[in-house]
Amino acid sequence: MDAITNAERAEVLVQALPYIRKYFGKIIVIKYGGNAMVSEELRRQVMEDMVLLRMVGVRVVLVHGGGPEITETMKKLGKESVFIDGLRVTDQETVDIVQMVLAGKINKTLVNLLQVHGGRAIGLSGMDGGLIRAEMKDERLGFVGAVTKVNPTPILDLLEKGYIPVVSTLGCDKKGNVYNVNGDTAAAYIAGALGAERLIMMTDIDGVLKDREDPSTLISRLSVSEAESLLEEGVITGGMIPKIQCCLTAIAHGVRKVIIMDGRVSHSILMEILTNQGAGTMMYHDAQE
Amino acid sequence: MDAITNAERAEVLVQALPYIRKYFGKIIVIKYGGNAMVSEELRRQVMEDMVLLRMVGVRVVLVHGGGPEITETMKKLGKESVFIDGLRVTDQETVDIVQMVLAGKINKTLVNLLQVHGGRAIGLSGMDGGLIRAEMKDERLGFVGAVTKVNPTPILDLLEKGYIPVVSTLGCDKKGNVYNVNGDTAAAYIAGALGAERLIMMTDIDGVLKDREDPSTLISRLSVSEAESLLEEGVITGGMIPKIQCCLTAIAHGVRKVIIMDGRVSHSILMEILTNQGAGTMMYHDAQE
Amino acid sequence: MDAITNAERAEVLVQALPYIRKYFGKIIVIKYGGNAMVSEELRRQVMEDMVLLRMVGVRVVLVHGGGPEITETMKKLGKESVFIDGLRVTDQETVDIVQMVLAGKINKTLVNLLQVHGGRAIGLSGMDGGLIRAEMKDERLGFVGAVTKVNPTPILDLLEKGYIPVVSTLGCDKKGNVYNVNGDTAAAYIAGALGAERLIMMTDIDGVLKDREDPSTLISRLSVSEAESLLEEGVITGGMIPKIQCCLTAIAHGVRKVIIMDGRVSHSILMEILTNQGAGTMMYHDAQE
Amino acid sequence: MDAITNAERAEVLVQALPYIRKYFGKIIVIKYGGNAMVSEELRRQVMEDMVLLRMVGVRVVLVHGGGPEITETMKKLGKESVFIDGLRVTDQETVDIVQMVLAGKINKTLVNLLQVHGGRAIGLSGMDGGLIRAEMKDERLGFVGAVTKVNPTPILDLLEKGYIPVVSTLGCDKKGNVYNVNGDTAAAYIAGALGAERLIMMTDIDGVLKDREDPSTLISRLSVSEAESLLEEGVITGGMIPKIQCCLTAIAHGVRKVIIMDGRVSHSILMEILTNQGAGTMMYHDAQE
Amino acid sequence: MDAITNAERAEVLVQALPYIRKYFGKIIVIKYGGNAMVSEELRRQVMEDMVLLRMVGVRVVLVHGGGPEITETMKKLGKESVFIDGLRVTDQETVDIVQMVLAGKINKTLVNLLQVHGGRAIGLSGMDGGLIRAEMKDERLGFVGAVTKVNPTPILDLLEKGYIPVVSTLGCDKKGNVYNVNGDTAAAYIAGALGAERLIMMTDIDGVLKDREDPSTLISRLSVSEAESLLEEGVITGGMIPKIQCCLTAIAHGVRKVIIMDGRVSHSILMEILTNQGAGTMMYHDAQE
Amino acid sequence: MDAITNAERAEVLVQALPYIRKYFGKIIVIKYGGNAMVSEELRRQVMEDMVLLRMVGVRVVLVHGGGPEITETMKKLGKESVFIDGLRVTDQETVDIVQMVLAGKINKTLVNLLQVHGGRAIGLSGMDGGLIRAEMKDERLGFVGAVTKVNPTPILDLLEKGYIPVVSTLGCDKKGNVYNVNGDTAAAYIAGALGAERLIMMTDIDGVLKDREDPSTLISRLSVSEAESLLEEGVITGGMIPKIQCCLTAIAHGVRKVIIMDGRVSHSILMEILTNQGAGTMMYHDAQE
Repeated sequence: MDAITNAERAEVLVQALPYIRKYFGKIIVIKYGGNAMVSEELRRQVMEDMVLLRMVGVRVVLVHGGGPEITETMKKLGKESVFIDGLRVTDQETVDIVQMVLAGKINKTLVNLLQVHGGRAIGLSGMDGGLIRAEMKDERLGFVGAVTKVNPTPILDLLEKGYIPVVSTLGCDKKGNVYNVNGDTAAAYIAGALGAERLIMMTDIDGVLKDREDPSTLISRLSVSEAESLLEEGVITGGMIPKIQCCLTAIAHGVRKVIIMDGRVSHSILMEILTNQGAGTMMYHDAQE
Repeated sequence: MDAITNAERAEVLVQALPYIRKYFGKIIVIKYGGNAMVSEELRRQVMEDMVLLRMVGVRVVLVHGGGPEITETMKKLGKESVFIDGLRVTDQETVDIVQMVLAGKINKTLVNLLQVHGGRAIGLSGMDGGLIRAEMKDERLGFVGAVTKVNPTPILDLLEKGYIPVVSTLGCDKKGNVYNVNGDTAAAYIAGALGAERLIMMTDIDGVLKDREDPSTLISRLSVSEAESLLEEGVITGGMIPKIQCCLTAIAHGVRKVIIMDGRVSHSILMEILTNQGAGTMMYHDAQE
Repeated sequence: MDAITNAERAEVLVQALPYIRKYFGKIIVIKYGGNAMVSEELRRQVMEDMVLLRMVGVRVVLVHGGGPEITETMKKLGKESVFIDGLRVTDQETVDIVQMVLAGKINKTLVNLLQVHGGRAIGLSGMDGGLIRAEMKDERLGFVGAVTKVNPTPILDLLEKGYIPVVSTLGCDKKGNVYNVNGDTAAAYIAGALGAERLIMMTDIDGVLKDREDPSTLISRLSVSEAESLLEEGVITGGMIPKIQCCLTAIAHGVRKVIIMDGRVSHSILMEILTNQGAGTMMYHDAQE
Repeated sequence: MDAITNAERAEVLVQALPYIRKYFGKIIVIKYGGNAMVSEELRRQVMEDMVLLRMVGVRVVLVHGGGPEITETMKKLGKESVFIDGLRVTDQETVDIVQMVLAGKINKTLVNLLQVHGGRAIGLSGMDGGLIRAEMKDERLGFVGAVTKVNPTPILDLLEKGYIPVVSTLGCDKKGNVYNVNGDTAAAYIAGALGAERLIMMTDIDGVLKDREDPSTLISRLSVSEAESLLEEGVITGGMIPKIQCCLTAIAHGVRKVIIMDGRVSHSILMEILTNQGAGTMMYHDAQE
Repeated sequence: MDAITNAERAEVLVQALPYIRKYFGKIIVIKYGGNAMVSEELRRQVMEDMVLLRMVGVRVVLVHGGGPEITETMKKLGKESVFIDGLRVTDQETVDIVQMVLAGKINKTLVNLLQVHGGRAIGLSGMDGGLIRAEMKDERLGFVGAVTKVNPTPILDLLEKGYIPVVSTLGCDKKGNVYNVNGDTAAAYIAGALGAERLIMMTDIDGVLKDREDPSTLISRLSVSEAESLLEEGVITGGMIPKIQCCLTAIAHGVRKVIIMDGRVSHSILMEILTNQGAGTMMYHDAQE
Repeated sequence: MDAITNAERAEVLVQALPYIRKYFGKIIVIKYGGNAMVSEELRRQVMEDMVLLRMVGVRVVLVHGGGPEITETMKKLGKESVFIDGLRVTDQETVDIVQMVLAGKINKTLVNLLQVHGGRAIGLSGMDGGLIRAEMKDERLGFVGAVTKVNPTPILDLLEKGYIPVVSTLGCDKKGNVYNVNGDTAAAYIAGALGAERLIMMTDIDGVLKDREDPSTLISRLSVSEAESLLEEGVITGGMIPKIQCCLTAIAHGVRKVIIMDGRVSHSILMEILTNQGAGTMMYHDAQE
């Protein structure tokens, strides 16, 4: 980088201009997770990207999960995990731990990092302002929640005041029960309720591959109907299935485009938004392009 | 209560009218702690009081601590406490636990309760929007913070949007280090920065007593200079000393009146604000009355 | 009442919470008349009720008549009343007296009382801001007006500025002729034009009775179609007929619910709005419940 | 007038331009009374003048008295007047009549006329919104009030919403007692509280004359100190003394200029404001010109 | 004029009142040209008319051409004009001159005059804020533009801030090519995009005549269908044809009424708008009257 | 540049972050002239820089001169220049040409370019909205103006509406006489009236040099008192003297810092504002650093 002159810097800035114009005032929801959240270096870069986008007028919203840290804290607390059909049973004590880790540890740490990098951020859980309403999915699993409604007002209020909202994906019902809800699903519902221009799903893969073993088979653009075909034909498999389904949900709820992006790449968000090199796979409504 | 007729109810409501008028649009900061926070019944009542005050136009702010739950969680995590001169050493791991418990567990549980009782609440930690700036007090104690500055903007932004802000008393410095700061002190600084009409300190005592053993010696009104005399003369002792000092700080920073109140009494906040029966000890600037 | 403790007071206040929430920001029109207007004690209570409702966020509008005082003033002025088919002939001199008594005496006295009880009130007649447009009903009767249009802007302007509008039911036409219009009818049209949540008709009876002689036959809820049946069947008779017709008019023009209420009961408005004990008869659109 | 061509009309309009500019957005208080209020033709002209000034951006306020109509109504009601030292004793019954006539009869008739001429007007008494606070002047005289304070908010609220406020000069105290206050004095206080650009006193004389018998001795401009000299020297006599004192009060309270104007001249207000021919006597602060 | 007394002046002003009310807040677009622009005296009057209309609340927009000055400047610069089929070929050099004369000379001189007469004016060309989009009409003619779109935002922004927008009829395309567009057409499109109440076309003729040679055959009101008939029947001929077509365009795009007016008459705009004597020919949509 | 990867691009963008934050919402006035205005390539870059700065929240104002084009047009028009003591005599015809070239040709061409590059721009001359008031400097020189007052409202109005104001440095007096005013001086007054954060003077030199012949003697930072010393000592000579005096004027009128910058360097504005490499000489108030 030292080789880059200031003249070149200026040129780079100017070349970002059409992209800045394109996204000015638009809402972009980032579902944040995986390595981009674990690696300190990548985390710093994501924060810088968020703050820069906010400064140039993009209204960014950060939605995060936190699986690994929950598991780790549970282990420390000597809380054993029980599984039914491979799904973790979430009793009251477990959901309390989830709440502590997500809304207390991870959320505030991200808020803190954004502030350190010059952003103005406020953290929200699904309980704040009644953001995420959820209900029990399956009684045997306990407090695992299905999202029933997203109230976008708290996020919009913070955006209007110039903050970057950082959202923990907990939900609650009218009685005040708290539920652990899936981060990808919550992000899809939130982006939909906000009518977001983009939902960016940060993952640890390159994107959707035709041949899972071969990165050169990356599908860079995927319409809803094509995605449905790939699901049917079994080309999309394993953990990618629910992720693609979330993307389809988001588009069905009104998000313009969803991008599955490799969070292991430096400044991948900025590159996606402010340069001509989109990373990963972009999904879009058939009627759109 | 069943004996109270609807006519009497109406009469009671009408008699609250002058108080409602008095506090309309004013900011009241409640420092919440002690039994009022532990007892489920009292907690429900405090939430009801908060929501009611908000509905009748008072701009309430809830500031909470959480000592007992922190200790309990640390025990569960097998984290031993080290003390220097009677003060707990707060290493990085400890401050992480404090953050989890305060900002994740207690804060969000209070937000949730307020929402269940019909309020609209959003939780903030000292990191959110750079609310509480702090610095290390004593290197040997680690991440125990002294408040250096309160930025009231995030609270005012939420009040403007109609929310009840719920604040965890964590602080951070410019580098992003997180500090555990004393709840009473933080509440005093926050109330001062907001120019609050009242700061209500909920405690487990009746108020300031002339004779600590005799509740009938309660001092119901105490000017700043009187308080200073009592401190000097040694009438105020033990844990009451720092509490009174916080009250003096608050008044010095611009809070109109500070009340030390017995949180073990049902709906003590409502009684203080909306009836003619002030509970506990009210402290005020000498020039004021 | 002296027996009510402050703890009970607080409890009563808290129990009003769900009702306060329900009516927050809503418009309630009170058609004020009868004993509630004559008795000094009841009048004081109505004023307190109005001011309290305004303080807790309800947008109240007071519409008043003034038959008895008009008659009394006419008598004092030696103005004889002429009747055609039992209806009073209203010549120019009479309508001048009506204007003086309604807009000058009663209206300003109510405004004054509301101010004394801590409210902020401004009085309006149908001429102010072109509030009530009317036309001659019957040439033989002179300046007795039928409402042709209500312009709600002056009322909404005052509500926006935080005042309690107090309305005298005079109307005028484009040429500036003033008409005496029926208070109940005017209230119905005004409530309709405001899309009021409630129109409360204060009367000197318990409400609609199945058997006029037997208060125990009070009908507490009455749908529009049921009311129409009762009118057809002759169950509703005498002075109750036009009153019910006004209620139906109000509902037809968009008022959600109309309540015929006994104004002789202390704080009947507050009880109706802020407790679970609705007094009198509530009328509603069939499609509503 | 028929001889005036449209070309001349246009020319006249254009010549009003600098005056329109000068008064745009400024507050002008008209104290209305005398023949201009009695003659139907002059009354129509005053209303037209008011509405036109409002349309071209002047914020006009009309303050009226009503002596003759009060006397007439009292006579009709068979209420005898008692005098002490030449001043009418105002008992409760009398002040009630004053209220009826001023706030009910005259005020609403003026409001109505303004509306008929295309203005948007709302009438206020001194009770509305606590506009005029007064206290008893002399116990023997009863409810004759001295103005103690004017709260300009109700007038400013109506001006902001585009209305022409029409004010009856009644006052009230905190207990709700109503007082008859002198119209000229009230107008002076109101104009002062509003920081009016002009206070126009409509009278039945040409203005201040050096020789009361000789209209050719009209003083067209009079500084405060000159007025004080004339008072001292006894040049100003009789009913003109209190009128001049009101003018001095208005200027002392912040009104820029006060004009004593002959209301018997057609469209005298418009001529004063929109042409180069000021009528009557203009009074101003010594420091001003 | 000297014979007009101030009383008559006031009367004239009052008689303008209904017209002022009628146009309050409405948008009137003046297409300015011909003798009214050449004669210094007439120019002054047009400026006065504009400023007066603005002061009484009309939102005026001035659109100007400038044929004669362009020709004159071209001559001075020794630039010869080439014609194809009677139309001037506009090469780059010519359009540069047009831009200089229209946007630099005429536009700023008009702005300056409006300011001198007390108005607040800002000049716009079709390039400012992307006001007028145009495309090449005919390659052989060069930079002669056909209007493709009008973006009314810059005009509305200036109106909101209280300015009189003065518009030069240049257009540009996305690449930045500048075109000379016909002033009448541009005015029609602009008035349409603004939903103007009136478009006034200032010309050097009396209006539409049935017999071109006979001024007494002036058609004072002309519906769209009547105008179309006259065009078909060949009653409208010569230079009046495109002018009438512009008027039809304006009405089709949403202007309420278009007036072809004789700009050689003193204060013709003011007479048209503020008196009962409309000059020239008024065109209107068939459905309107 | 092709060698710059997207990762590097993202990194460059992120490194601009602290500078973007620093100037967010601040006003920067660019005095544009010299080679940066003549060379098409440099002109394109300046436009890009302006648009980019506007997009990232900087409120930029472009002030331009146009000496060479004026001279050229005068030559074309066969208008001979007369000089007195080396200063050009500016008769009415000359100032007309200046107006055409500055406000018509150059201003609108710059506006057009900014629009083509995606900005929203509106051009102003000193006449628009009474922006620049001027008076005759020396009768012998004719319409050469000295700035007497800048009214910043038109610029602030356009900034508020999101436009980039482009200003031609013409002035006018109350009678409407137009004056050619020196561009540097006008820019200094405008920047002062706006309380600008930066005034950037684009020139064809490196900056202030200690030894005029040796670019290596560039003074990169210069306090007001140092500049005054250099002027006194004769280190600053020739055309640099008035330029430095303009800078001193700007600082005296409230501009925080003035930069004399080499406009021949690519994207010099962007480099100055968004990188750590300030070009040219920065002048500042002694008290500031």
